[in-house]
Amino acid sequence: MGQFVYSFNEGSKDMKSLLGGKGANLAEMTKIGLPVPFGFTVTTEACNKYYADGKKMSKEVIDQTFEKLAELENVISKKFGDPTNPLLVSVRSGAVFSMPGMMDTILNLGLNDETVEGMSKLTGNERFAFDSYRRFIQMFGDVVLDISKSKFDEIFDAKKEEKGYEVDIDLKSDDLKAIIASYKALIKKEVGRDFPQDPKEQLMEAIMAVFRSWNNERAVLYRQLNNIPSSLGTAVNVQSMVFGNMGDTSGTGVAFTRNPATGENKIFGEFLVNAQGEDVVAGIRTPLPIDEMAVKFESVYKDFVKIAELLEKHYTDMQDMEFTIENNKLFMLQTRSGKRTAAAAVKVAVDMEKEGLIDRKTAITRIDPAQIDQLLHPTFDPIEIKKAVKLAKGLAASPGASYGKVYFNAASAEVAAATGEKVILVRLETSPEDLAGMVAAEGILTARGGMTSHAAVVARGMGKCCVSGCTGIKVNEKEKLFEAGGRIFKEGAYISLDGSTGDVYEGLVKTVKAELSGDFNTIMKWADEVRVLKVRANADNPKDAQQAIEFGAEGIGLCRTEHMFFNEERIPAVRRMILADSEVERREALAFLLPYQKEDFKGIYEIMGDRPVTIRLLDPPLHEFLPHTDEEIEILSKQINVPFEKLKKKTLDLHEFNPMLGHRGCRLAVTYPEIAEMQAEAIITAAIELKKEKGMEIIPEIMIPLIGLEKELAFVKNTVVDTINRCFEKQGVKVEYLVGTMIEVPRAALTADEIAKEAEFFSFGTNDLTQMTFGFSRDDTNEIINQYRELLIFEEDPFQTIDVAGVGKLVEMSVKLGRQTRPTIKLGICGEHGGDPKTVELCHNIGLNYVSCSPFRVPIARLAAAQAVVKAEGNNHTADK
Amino acid sequence: MGQFVYSFNEGSKDMKSLLGGKGANLAEMTKIGLPVPFGFTVTTEACNKYYADGKKMSKEVIDQTFEKLAELENVISKKFGDPTNPLLVSVRSGAVFSMPGMMDTILNLGLNDETVEGMSKLTGNERFAFDSYRRFIQMFGDVVLDISKSKFDEIFDAKKEEKGYEVDIDLKSDDLKAIIASYKALIKKEVGRDFPQDPKEQLMEAIMAVFRSWNNERAVLYRQLNNIPSSLGTAVNVQSMVFGNMGDTSGTGVAFTRNPATGENKIFGEFLVNAQGEDVVAGIRTPLPIDEMAVKFESVYKDFVKIAELLEKHYTDMQDMEFTIENNKLFMLQTRSGKRTAAAAVKVAVDMEKEGLIDRKTAITRIDPAQIDQLLHPTFDPIEIKKAVKLAKGLAASPGASYGKVYFNAASAEVAAATGEKVILVRLETSPEDLAGMVAAEGILTARGGMTSHAAVVARGMGKCCVSGCTGIKVNEKEKLFEAGGRIFKEGAYISLDGSTGDVYEGLVKTVKAELSGDFNTIMKWADEVRVLKVRANADNPKDAQQAIEFGAEGIGLCRTEHMFFNEERIPAVRRMILADSEVERREALAFLLPYQKEDFKGIYEIMGDRPVTIRLLDPPLHEFLPHTDEEIEILSKQINVPFEKLKKKTLDLHEFNPMLGHRGCRLAVTYPEIAEMQAEAIITAAIELKKEKGMEIIPEIMIPLIGLEKELAFVKNTVVDTINRCFEKQGVKVEYLVGTMIEVPRAALTADEIAKEAEFFSFGTNDLTQMTFGFSRDDTNEIINQYRELLIFEEDPFQTIDVAGVGKLVEMSVKLGRQTRPTIKLGICGEHGGDPKTVELCHNIGLNYVSCSPFRVPIARLAAAQAVVKAEGNNHTADK
Repeated sequence: MGQFVYSFNEGSKDMKSLLGGKGANLAEMTKIGLPVPFGFTVTTEACNKYYADGKKMSKEVIDQTFEKLAELENVISKKFGDPTNPLLVSVRSGAVFSMPGMMDTILNLGLNDETVEGMSKLTGNERFAFDSYRRFIQMFGDVVLDISKSKFDEIFDAKKEEKGYEVDIDLKSDDLKAIIASYKALIKKEVGRDFPQDPKEQLMEAIMAVFRSWNNERAVLYRQLNNIPSSLGTAVNVQSMVFGNMGDTSGTGVAFTRNPATGENKIFGEFLVNAQGEDVVAGIRTPLPIDEMAVKFESVYKDFVKIAELLEKHYTDMQDMEFTIENNKLFMLQTRSGKRTAAAAVKVAVDMEKEGLIDRKTAITRIDPAQIDQLLHPTFDPIEIKKAVKLAKGLAASPGASYGKVYFNAASAEVAAATGEKVILVRLETSPEDLAGMVAAEGILTARGGMTSHAAVVARGMGKCCVSGCTGIKVNEKEKLFEAGGRIFKEGAYISLDGSTGDVYEGLVKTVKAELSGDFNTIMKWADEVRVLKVRANADNPKDAQQAIEFGAEGIGLCRTEHMFFNEERIPAVRRMILADSEVERREALAFLLPYQKEDFKGIYEIMGDRPVTIRLLDPPLHEFLPHTDEEIEILSKQINVPFEKLKKKTLDLHEFNPMLGHRGCRLAVTYPEIAEMQAEAIITAAIELKKEKGMEIIPEIMIPLIGLEKELAFVKNTVVDTINRCFEKQGVKVEYLVGTMIEVPRAALTADEIAKEAEFFSFGTNDLTQMTFGFSRDDTNEIINQYRELLIFEEDPFQTIDVAGVGKLVEMSVKLGRQTRPTIKLGICGEHGGDPKTVELCHNIGLNYVSCSPFRVPIARLAAAQAVVKAEGNNHTADK
Repeated sequence: MGQFVYSFNEGSKDMKSLLGGKGANLAEMTKIGLPVPFGFTVTTEACNKYYADGKKMSKEVIDQTFEKLAELENVISKKFGDPTNPLLVSVRSGAVFSMPGMMDTILNLGLNDETVEGMSKLTGNERFAFDSYRRFIQMFGDVVLDISKSKFDEIFDAKKEEKGYEVDIDLKSDDLKAIIASYKALIKKEVGRDFPQDPKEQLMEAIMAVFRSWNNERAVLYRQLNNIPSSLGTAVNVQSMVFGNMGDTSGTGVAFTRNPATGENKIFGEFLVNAQGEDVVAGIRTPLPIDEMAVKFESVYKDFVKIAELLEKHYTDMQDMEFTIENNKLFMLQTRSGKRTAAAAVKVAVDMEKEGLIDRKTAITRIDPAQIDQLLHPTFDPIEIKKAVKLAKGLAASPGASYGKVYFNAASAEVAAATGEKVILVRLETSPEDLAGMVAAEGILTARGGMTSHAAVVARGMGKCCVSGCTGIKVNEKEKLFEAGGRIFKEGAYISLDGSTGDVYEGLVKTVKAELSGDFNTIMKWADEVRVLKVRANADNPKDAQQAIEFGAEGIGLCRTEHMFFNEERIPAVRRMILADSEVERREALAFLLPYQKEDFKGIYEIMGDRPVTIRLLDPPLHEFLPHTDEEIEILSKQINVPFEKLKKKTLDLHEFNPMLGHRGCRLAVTYPEIAEMQAEAIITAAIELKKEKGMEIIPEIMIPLIGLEKELAFVKNTVVDTINRCFEKQGVKVEYLVGTMIEVPRAALTADEIAKEAEFFSFGTNDLTQMTFGFSRDDTNEIINQYRELLIFEEDPFQTIDVAGVGKLVEMSVKLGRQTRPTIKLGICGEHGGDPKTVELCHNIGLNYVSCSPFRVPIARLAAAQAVVKAEGNNHTADK
């Protein structure tokens, strides 16, 4: 027979899985001698036993509970049901992981028709006693007997109305007695039995009710959403009541050991005189800042400060505490690790390391990488945003806040921006053609597209605010307007975007610039010391490359050459290339593009210096470079002097039912080897020229996309290597280089041992790999994914956090198979997942060499990579949360 | 030191890998005492050694060759270079697998300026001797010295012109001597040395040339196309020459032991008097039927018949033989397993089993399953087709031959067919909307789409002839015409299609109906006795189900419910369902559809009886049920009285960038559970009603498509099971049923252990699995796949034969993982691959329970499944080919 019930002096903070978070911390505080109202905890195992026994309390648990109850009565010299000195207790759930508000609480248990009188005499406050009894019956009826709260409220409100009272406080003792009588009658009517007068019966029923609440609907939902196993069960804490509402010598409050907003090392909190905990939370009365406690409860405050300091040292983390003062006596009711802003997290971690409280590895784990985005991007002025009118909510596609006048196409956005206007580009969705407009805009808003749509990916790359998939706005690009909430917004109207939340606001909401503190740099330095994974950035031009280096990138993991094709000077040649009737014509157009591409690469190489640069050969289907509507075709037809019909026909010929699975990636290089040849020549010649001109030793990494078969890679690699050898001959100089491939087609992952025969590196393109592994087009399945998340089919959006069981399995297979063939193969990831902390952890654990993400996510990845090391070391550096 | 050269009396037919096919059979015939001109074989190992030694003949091989040469000289009492009795030999390649015409042959080796004179005296035919010498020099120049044939032809033709001769036979000995002189001069000029006069030198150079020819371009290509490893190498056969062109007592011929067209058990072949082997092949003179040999060479013919019988018994298979008669003496030059038509293959196999030559398992292996299609479909009249004009060539999408008048949309095809016209439906591509037109048509021709396009899949299901992806025709559906080869074909013009070859012919070409012989049924019965895999059919209606049973299907592996939605009576309700603004409206439309669906299933169940029927819930994206062009929308708008704008908006809303990866499959059942509910109700109520009405015990298998996650399956299964329980309650009767899933998304395969928790069966949807595993849209990648096959990146079209290394690996993983969780799980395949023999073999080997394919492929699958058993048993039942 095991122990199912623990008095508070029997446990410790390390017994969380048995006692729950709250119970373990109450035990810990008791153990270290803090003033905690005594009590005991019925364990999670008792909860599991309750379910295993078919929702019945076993004799063992009942016996042990009453044993501990007797001990409690002894310790505090009060007795259950004693009319002269009754023991009252609170009964609270306490799960292993905090599930705020998910389960039920019962206060004042132990009151009955007799003890309420005793209580009244003891406190000299009849109204207080009967109001407590009234509340207890109501809570018991609701939580234990499952009678709708509203039925109790009806009785209560009827009495107020009958008496013509405005507020609850007007009710007299007699009114409360009448209400109690009605409450009892209601219970009798609803459940066919009387409200139990025996406190022990009350207690047993309450404990079982808390156990049942573990499986109430919202608790189940919360657990599923937060990935908490149902098998954990909840503990139940039975604690003697203390009252903060016993008059002006009493009170209650909550406080943090440090400022949770700024991290300042100073107690921060608020309290209420003559009040219970619920009053603070309910917000009916305005609490006082904690400093005033020093005035109102001088010695109690001194005690509290000492306790706060002690708790922080003891837990080695900033604490969030609840306390009650009963007749000038301080009681601690709760302590736990405090939630904090990113800025506070950084400052607290660095300060605590300096104070010697924690070591550097622990400091690193104290910052949630996902929060870092807050520090890198502008945010709305906190005052202004409160007044702003929200228009719609889309996906938080790229963080930051921005405002500007709306424009509905890239060209007019560019023109407006050139005149100094702040511009928000609003589109149904963006395509590579909108690039210049996106560069010019402060923020981007699209009606369609998900977290990995073109708009989202490109905006994140630029560190520019973007809200995508905002189905609440109806965009009419032709009429240059959008509709939201029944209103029309025309070109030039102001709106404001919060890319960190997805909110779209009417009008101009001022923003506050992001500033990186010295503490942030300190944390990053520590992270760099610890991490093993390299962190690269995805960057397509010198400006992004520069930004990437500033954020600490150690190379470029993905340079997308197609973005260079959209430049105004080049797009005509790109189109000539696509429209070419012969290889000769196509080669002419490519020859025109060659010097541009070469200069692109030189620019990037120069900035990156000896850091590696991975350049991906042309990837998108060619029709992305052509216009699609008849109007656009008409315009282009005149521009480039190609007959409308021919242009139209070409766009139709290139049309694909499923372009994602069509003529793109390496398939272009197989069909038109001359494109790969031009790109290989540009990549290598750029390196050779920098060697000649500046003595730089660039080692380009040439990446072939969308490979599915070894022979396919061999074919394209052959084209590339032949071209490079010709370059070497022509230039009379050689440079080192690598040829590798994206692993983004499931088949490539499945046959990575074969592919590795040809590839010197793998870069996991987890965007496409996720699309194909799930059969989810990221352009089409936003709504489905949202629905799946609501239905809990998905715990996370697989386009944001890598799907470990499916896509992750493929990546792991590839790593194993690839290294089997070529032990020295370089392995990295360059999908959007590269900046997601959970994915970074996976990448560390399966032994990749690097992750690559958009420049603004580089700090996140650096931190996540360091945390992965600490976590894998298995040291319990993580604070008790 | 190994043995690199074997005399014919040292080898046997079991030494094919060492001696090549030809060499092993020559040795075998020698061994059993048949008259084979003596000789020896230089082994494939010698070839590999030649390459390993850097294309040099090692001393060992040279020495052994001359040793065997000496033996040969001894045996036939002739000598290399002996002017009075010269030994002449042929030098022929002989690979392990037959590579007809791929490598080189040299005849009359041993002739030089001296021996030609001896030969002249010996035969008393100067012209013959010099013509032989002339031919030898030319062959040697071409094969060994790599001098272009055309250069020899120029000299030859110049002489003819100079002399004013019409035909070669006019050339006199002196002319030939002059030509020989010029040939020699040409060689000297081209390679800088004289034509070698030493026969031993000639021999060594010839052997090396044959070795080199193993790696000539066409041989390499052939091997890659036929998946023959390059490491096998070729053997070289050196055989003493016999001459069929020594006058009227000589001759040469080829013969089969049975008729290769019909299988009739009677020697079939042809021969020429006074001719060499090449003359038969070249077709300049018309050979005589073999029967006439009985007249012209009575005793030789008797010998030959005896030998043929002996060879057939010895090899236990129909033989294809070459022979030469030199001065009334018969010599066997070659024997091998004879190629035959499907009809002949069936008859020969059954006859031989009856004759006791082979057992049933062997008989089964003697028919190429891919050939069976020939037996099931009509073919063109062989006379008529020779006169037909070919217009274009597309993909052989669904076998059979048909002719008819062209119509360009389903409606007019239907109308025309109703008036008794034979119709060919010509479309850019087909969609489910074209179904009625496809049913009405004799054949279907599409300009776009691959082997697994809608047109191809549906046509195969119907057993209807189809040519898809015919890029050579330009279809203009609007103008109702197509263009091919610069000509226009309007509505009503006759064309003819061969779906077995992909050929499209102008005009009406008569067809011959297919007839199944009793022998065919015998073979099928034997196959059924042997095979372990069950064979089901994909069928969507009672007619197809009936057809499937006739072809021997043991159940339905895939019943696609969406095809039922396109029926004229129902499509309006389907569209109302899609256009519904609320769940209530949608449920109303579904309620209208319910009785139709129920009757569909009853019809199918009744025909299938106690055979299992797997019904797939609605799969395609909803937009497939709506019109797309403004014109079609306009028409529908009037038809169903829904405003054009609303209809248009809905089609736009439903538009997807990549519908393959969009809102379809189980995702529909998640979003609109009411659709799945209606279908589940129809499936179960149909079974209940048949139980009530006829006492039938139907066990429906409900299949949920496109599952990627366990929770997704759990969700839909829950909907289905709840509905079924309601049906049971309503009907007061229960029936058994299974719920399972397609495995067609890579993630489902990767997590099959999880999925199997919910699934009672898996059916591998290898079409979609192939699309997603490769990232190839079957609608868009025809041309890419063709190009990949030309470039040998693909050995086979992965949509026709399962890709073992990638897709096959996923299937195998799923089988393992699925059985791990649920050992009794039913496993089948229902993709198009289910009727492909190689895939069937894989399915047998990895332990699936059944394959399912279109009805017309059921016999192929039955045979392939039996062959897989025989092959896996490892018994060498397969004949020596």
